[in-house]
Amino acid sequence: MRFAVRSSLEYDVKSPAVFILNVEAAALRRQRIIVESLSLNPAFPIERFADDEGGSRFIRVNASPGPFHVSYHAVVDVDMIDKAPESIQELPVGDLPLDIMPYLYPSRFCQSDLLGRFACREFGEIEPGHTRVTAICNWIHEHVDYVRGSSNSQTSAYDTMVMRAGVCRDFAHLGITFCRALNIPARFASGYAWQLDPPDFHAVFEAYLGGQWYLFDATQQAALQGLVRIGVGRDASDAAFATIYGDAEFKDMSVGINAVGGDAENEEPTTRAVSVA
Amino acid sequence: MRFAVRSSLEYDVKSPAVFILNVEAAALRRQRIIVESLSLNPAFPIERFADDEGGSRFIRVNASPGPFHVSYHAVVDVDMIDKAPESIQELPVGDLPLDIMPYLYPSRFCQSDLLGRFACREFGEIEPGHTRVTAICNWIHEHVDYVRGSSNSQTSAYDTMVMRAGVCRDFAHLGITFCRALNIPARFASGYAWQLDPPDFHAVFEAYLGGQWYLFDATQQAALQGLVRIGVGRDASDAAFATIYGDAEFKDMSVGINAVGGDAENEEPTTRAVSVA
Amino acid sequence: MRFAVRSSLEYDVKSPAVFILNVEAAALRRQRIIVESLSLNPAFPIERFADDEGGSRFIRVNASPGPFHVSYHAVVDVDMIDKAPESIQELPVGDLPLDIMPYLYPSRFCQSDLLGRFACREFGEIEPGHTRVTAICNWIHEHVDYVRGSSNSQTSAYDTMVMRAGVCRDFAHLGITFCRALNIPARFASGYAWQLDPPDFHAVFEAYLGGQWYLFDATQQAALQGLVRIGVGRDASDAAFATIYGDAEFKDMSVGINAVGGDAENEEPTTRAVSVA
Amino acid sequence: MRFAVRSSLEYDVKSPAVFILNVEAAALRRQRIIVESLSLNPAFPIERFADDEGGSRFIRVNASPGPFHVSYHAVVDVDMIDKAPESIQELPVGDLPLDIMPYLYPSRFCQSDLLGRFACREFGEIEPGHTRVTAICNWIHEHVDYVRGSSNSQTSAYDTMVMRAGVCRDFAHLGITFCRALNIPARFASGYAWQLDPPDFHAVFEAYLGGQWYLFDATQQAALQGLVRIGVGRDASDAAFATIYGDAEFKDMSVGINAVGGDAENEEPTTRAVSVA
Repeated sequence: MRFAVRSSLEYDVKSPAVFILNVEAAALRRQRIIVESLSLNPAFPIERFADDEGGSRFIRVNASPGPFHVSYHAVVDVDMIDKAPESIQELPVGDLPLDIMPYLYPSRFCQSDLLGRFACREFGEIEPGHTRVTAICNWIHEHVDYVRGSSNSQTSAYDTMVMRAGVCRDFAHLGITFCRALNIPARFASGYAWQLDPPDFHAVFEAYLGGQWYLFDATQQAALQGLVRIGVGRDASDAAFATIYGDAEFKDMSVGINAVGGDAENEEPTTRAVSVA
Repeated sequence: MRFAVRSSLEYDVKSPAVFILNVEAAALRRQRIIVESLSLNPAFPIERFADDEGGSRFIRVNASPGPFHVSYHAVVDVDMIDKAPESIQELPVGDLPLDIMPYLYPSRFCQSDLLGRFACREFGEIEPGHTRVTAICNWIHEHVDYVRGSSNSQTSAYDTMVMRAGVCRDFAHLGITFCRALNIPARFASGYAWQLDPPDFHAVFEAYLGGQWYLFDATQQAALQGLVRIGVGRDASDAAFATIYGDAEFKDMSVGINAVGGDAENEEPTTRAVSVA
Repeated sequence: MRFAVRSSLEYDVKSPAVFILNVEAAALRRQRIIVESLSLNPAFPIERFADDEGGSRFIRVNASPGPFHVSYHAVVDVDMIDKAPESIQELPVGDLPLDIMPYLYPSRFCQSDLLGRFACREFGEIEPGHTRVTAICNWIHEHVDYVRGSSNSQTSAYDTMVMRAGVCRDFAHLGITFCRALNIPARFASGYAWQLDPPDFHAVFEAYLGGQWYLFDATQQAALQGLVRIGVGRDASDAAFATIYGDAEFKDMSVGINAVGGDAENEEPTTRAVSVA
Repeated sequence: MRFAVRSSLEYDVKSPAVFILNVEAAALRRQRIIVESLSLNPAFPIERFADDEGGSRFIRVNASPGPFHVSYHAVVDVDMIDKAPESIQELPVGDLPLDIMPYLYPSRFCQSDLLGRFACREFGEIEPGHTRVTAICNWIHEHVDYVRGSSNSQTSAYDTMVMRAGVCRDFAHLGITFCRALNIPARFASGYAWQLDPPDFHAVFEAYLGGQWYLFDATQQAALQGLVRIGVGRDASDAAFATIYGDAEFKDMSVGINAVGGDAENEEPTTRAVSVA
C-alpha cells in the first residue's frame, strides 16, 4: 500500500538547544520512500544518523532561540511480509541471532525481570509463536483501559500492571515486557498509523519470531498494515519523536496519514502476521 | 473451641533497646483468656498498652544488653460469631460508623488509592457482601504464589500485584488493599493459627461487613475458626509481633497452637463467616 | 492572636456521593472557636465525628446530584504554647506515651522504614530536640524545590527524596518521614495559614517533643504562629479537606485567613517553638 | 601493566539451559590479550559474539543437565590512556558522535530522567569535565554506604538514592545516572579489579569525555589502572557475567587477578584520568 504521511512540530526555543528528531519514515527494504521532504524553519543545519539495524533515522539540530518549526512530508510504499500467524514460531534462546539478544533484557520502561512470574502464569501455557504474542495483546486490550492523561513520561510497565490504564506507549511497553519475560525478543516501534483516530504519532511493538520482527498493536486502534514505521528501540527512551537538550517550549503538533490510491478506506485491520523488517 | 497457644522469642541485646511486643492473645468478648503467662528473662519491668477498639495488647520493655528471652503461654476460649456468608452485607460508606472510616484509607503497605481501577474491574460486578471478599481471597489464592523468601519487610501490595509472590503478610496486604479500593473497611490481623504448617505467627485480615469485623485468610493455609487473634492495625506496621528500637539480634523463635479437648483434629477449615469482634 | 478564616468548596455532584469534609478549625484548649458557621447548599443533613486526640472535626454528608456548595467561616483565638526551642527535648522511645507510638510507624506517604539510613547520616549527629527537627525543615527547604504541579496525590516521601520537588504536602511528608526514622513521633497537620500567598489550605507537620506536639513548616511559606489547625493524621490520607466516595466534579475553591485586630501585619514568622496541642 | 586474571563458575544444570557468559577480558587496542584459555566442562560447543564498539565478548552455550564448570585464565597487557584530569572536557550534546547518544538515555537501573533535578542542584555548578565526574564519584562514596546484602538484582539508582546503601553495581548505576542527567554519556563496565579485596567481579562505569570513555569507580575499592575490562553496556542488564535461560543452580565462583612483573604491589590507586577505549 502507498501512504502519504506528514507531521509538523512547533517549538519556541528559549536558549540554544539541541534537538534529536525522529519523525522521518524508516528506510527499509519493504518500506520504500518514494518522495519526502523535511523542512526546518529557520533552516538550521542538520546532522543525520541512521540505525542500520532498525532503520531509524535521527536528525540532530542545534537550534537558536526563537520560533522553530519542523515539517515533514513523505510518500511511502509499504510492502509488508504478510503471513498466516499460525505458521510463525518462536525461536529458542539458543537459536536467536546474537545481535538480537539485547532485546531480551529489561529496559527503563520494561522491567521484564519483575513480571516473569505473571507472564509465565498467564501466557506460559499458550502455544508459543505469533498467536501467543497476539494473546498478550488481547490480554492487555482487555485488562488495561486506554485513558488519555492517565500516565506520563515516567510511567513504566511495572506501574501499568498495577494501575491498569495508559496510552499507546504504555500498551507497547507492557507488551514488550511480557514478551521479554517469556524469552521473546521485543522492541518499541513508533510510526504513522493509518486509521488512528484522532491522528497522532503511534506506538506499537515488534516481537522477533521465526527470524523476523513482527508488528503488534495492543491498543487495537489502528490497522497494522497501515503502520508507516519511524523508529525502533528498546523502549520509548530510544524512539522519541523529539528529545530536546536545552530549553524549548512545545507549542503545537499535527500528524497525518492517508492511503494513496486504491479503495483502502474499506479495508479492515489485518489479522495476519505482518512485518516490515 | 479451646486452644493452647505458646510463643518463644530469643534475642541478643547489644545495647539498651526498647521492645514493643505484641504476642499476647487479644482479650475480646468472644475470645476469652482462661489462663496465661508471660515471662521475660531477665525479668525487665513491662508497661502495658491495650488498643480498646481492636483488643491488641502491647507490652513495652526497656531491655539491657545480654540475652533476652520472651515466653508466652495461654489457654483461650474462642467463641466466634458464625454466620451464613450470604446473609452478610456491605455497608454503604454513608452508613459506616465514623470511627471505622480510617480503615478505608491507604496505608504504608496497602496503596488502595492505586489499585482502584483493577479492583473495580475484577471485583466490581460481584455481588457485594461477605461473598465478594471471599472472591477477593480466592483471586489472591489463585493468582499469587505463596513462596517463602520471595518478599521482605518492605514489600507492599503494589509490589505483590506485579510480582505475584509473597507470604501471609503480603496476601493479607493485598486483600486489605482490594477491599479498601472497593470501599470496604479492612484491617490487618495477626494471630496464632491452628493447623498452620509449619507453625508460625500468621497474618490474615478482617473486613468490616454488616457491622462486624469478619476474618479472611487469602492464603487458605489455616482454619479460620482456629485463629487466636493477637493484634490488628492498618497494616503490618501496626501489628508486628516485635518492634525494636535499638540494637538487638534476633536469635530464635518458636510458635505453637493446639486445640484442647474435643475431636478437633478432624475438623475442616470453616466456610462460614466468622468473627471475634 | 485572633483570626478570621473562611473556605468555600464547590462541586457538581454527578451521582449520589458521600463527602467526608475536614475544613472546620479544630477545637482545642489553645485554639478556641469564637464564632463559626458552616453552610451547605443544598442543606444536606450532616453527621459529625471528632477525633478526641487531635481535635480534627469531620463531617459526613450524603449528597444528591446537582451543584453542591460548602462554605465555612470562623473566628478563632489561637493561644499557642510558645517556648525557647533549645529547651525542648526529644523523649526516648521508652518514655513516650503509649498512644503516641503509632506516629513512629511508617504510613502510606511516609516510608520511614526506608529512609532511616539517610536520616541517621544527615541528622543523626545533630543535638536531639526541637532544633534537630528545625534542622530537618531547613534541609528540606534547601534541598527540595517548591514547584506547583511537580507532584500529585500519589507522590510519597520516597519519591520526593529522589525528585527533589513538591508542594506543601510533600514537604510535610518528608519532614514526618525523617522524624519517624529518627524515632521522633510525627504527624501531618492541615490548616488555614496566615500570610500564605496565594491563600490555600496549607499542610505542615507536628513532631512530638517534650510531651507536646510542636508545629513545623518545612516550606517556610507562612508564619507558624498564624496556623489555624484543621486536621491531623498519620499523613495526608487521614487529613484531606475532602474525601469523596462517588462521582463529583470539583468546580472551584477559595480559602482565606486574616488576623483580626492588633498590628499583626508587621509580625515576622516566629522562630519560637509553638504548639496548639 | 600486565595482569593475570582468572575466574571459575560452577553450576548444577537442572534442565537444558542457555548460558550467555561474559567473563573474558575485552579485546581492545589498549588492552591486549597475551594468552588466554576458556574451558568448559563438559565441553559444550560455544558461539561467540563480540560487541564491536565496546569490545565485550559474549559466549552462548547450550548446556545439558548435570554439573557445569566454566574456567577462564588470561594474561592481559593494559596500556591505558593516562592524562591529567583537568585537561579533559565534556562535549556539548550537539558535538557528541551520534552513536554515543544512546548512552544519554535512561535504562532499567539508571532512571536519569528522574534524578535530573538533584543532579543539577548538586553537580550543576561544578566545572564541567573529568573533575566533575570525579566529584560525582566522591559524592557517592561519601553519601552511600557500601554494605554487602543491602541491595539485590532489582535495585535501581532510584532506590539507591533513597536507601543510601549498595554494592559496586549500585554505585556504578548511580554514577551513570547522575552523568546522564547532566548530559554526559555514561555506561556500565564490568571487570577484573586488581587490589579489590575480597576478589570478585567488579562493576565500575565509564563516562564519555573529550572523545573517549574514561573509567570511574565510585566505590574507591580498587586501583583503576588495574581494571581489566570485561563487558560494557547501558547498565548491569547488558553486562552480567552470566545470564541463564533455563534452570541452573549456582554452586560456586572464584575470581582472581595479579599484577605480573614489576613492583606493582606498592602502587597507589591512580588519580589520573584513565581509559582503555
